Amino acid sequence: MSIEPLNEEERAEALDALDEWDFDEARDAITRTFTFADFSAAFGFMTRVALLAEKMDHHPEWSNVWNRVDVLLTTHEAGGLSHRDVDMAGAMDALVD
Amino acid sequence: MSIEPLNEEERAEALDALDEWDFDEARDAITRTFTFADFSAAFGFMTRVALLAEKMDHHPEWSNVWNRVDVLLTTHEAGGLSHRDVDMAGAMDALVD
Repeated sequence: MSIEPLNEEERAEALDALDEWDFDEARDAITRTFTFADFSAAFGFMTRVALLAEKMDHHPEWSNVWNRVDVLLTTHEAGGLSHRDVDMAGAMDALVD
Repeated sequence: MSIEPLNEEERAEALDALDEWDFDEARDAITRTFTFADFSAAFGFMTRVALLAEKMDHHPEWSNVWNRVDVLLTTHEAGGLSHRDVDMAGAMDALVD
């Protein structure tokens, strides 16, 4: 099953809705930095996201330094942003907001 | 308690012993890429390292993409490589080798 990238209109709508996320034009991706009280809280968040990622079969590119988690979402199979990224971003937001 | 950076001799000895690790001169850090069968295995490794990191009170800078985990170890309080990085590198190696 191939995954279609978002079209222009869908992308604009998604970026408008995901107001905590930035658009990375070079990667056709969205990025967000999450900051927590300490490493334990940051890694707790990562663990919850890891479970989501396996369930949704969609995995972030991410890095962690102490209390900070930098996330980039894009869909390799689609060659750019897809609904999977929008869904995952919303699910990640729901864990912290 | 301040942490001393490794001196030249200690650094050379450590780098010689940690043969899976590369030296990042710009950061005075060591780096290693760990590769696993899939995301689940990679994140399982990260979870074990997270527990070690809390126990050792020393945390990696790291990123993950699917089955790959890139790790950088340095000691901010020491302004570069310290025995804490060498200990953590050895403990990470012990989880996979």
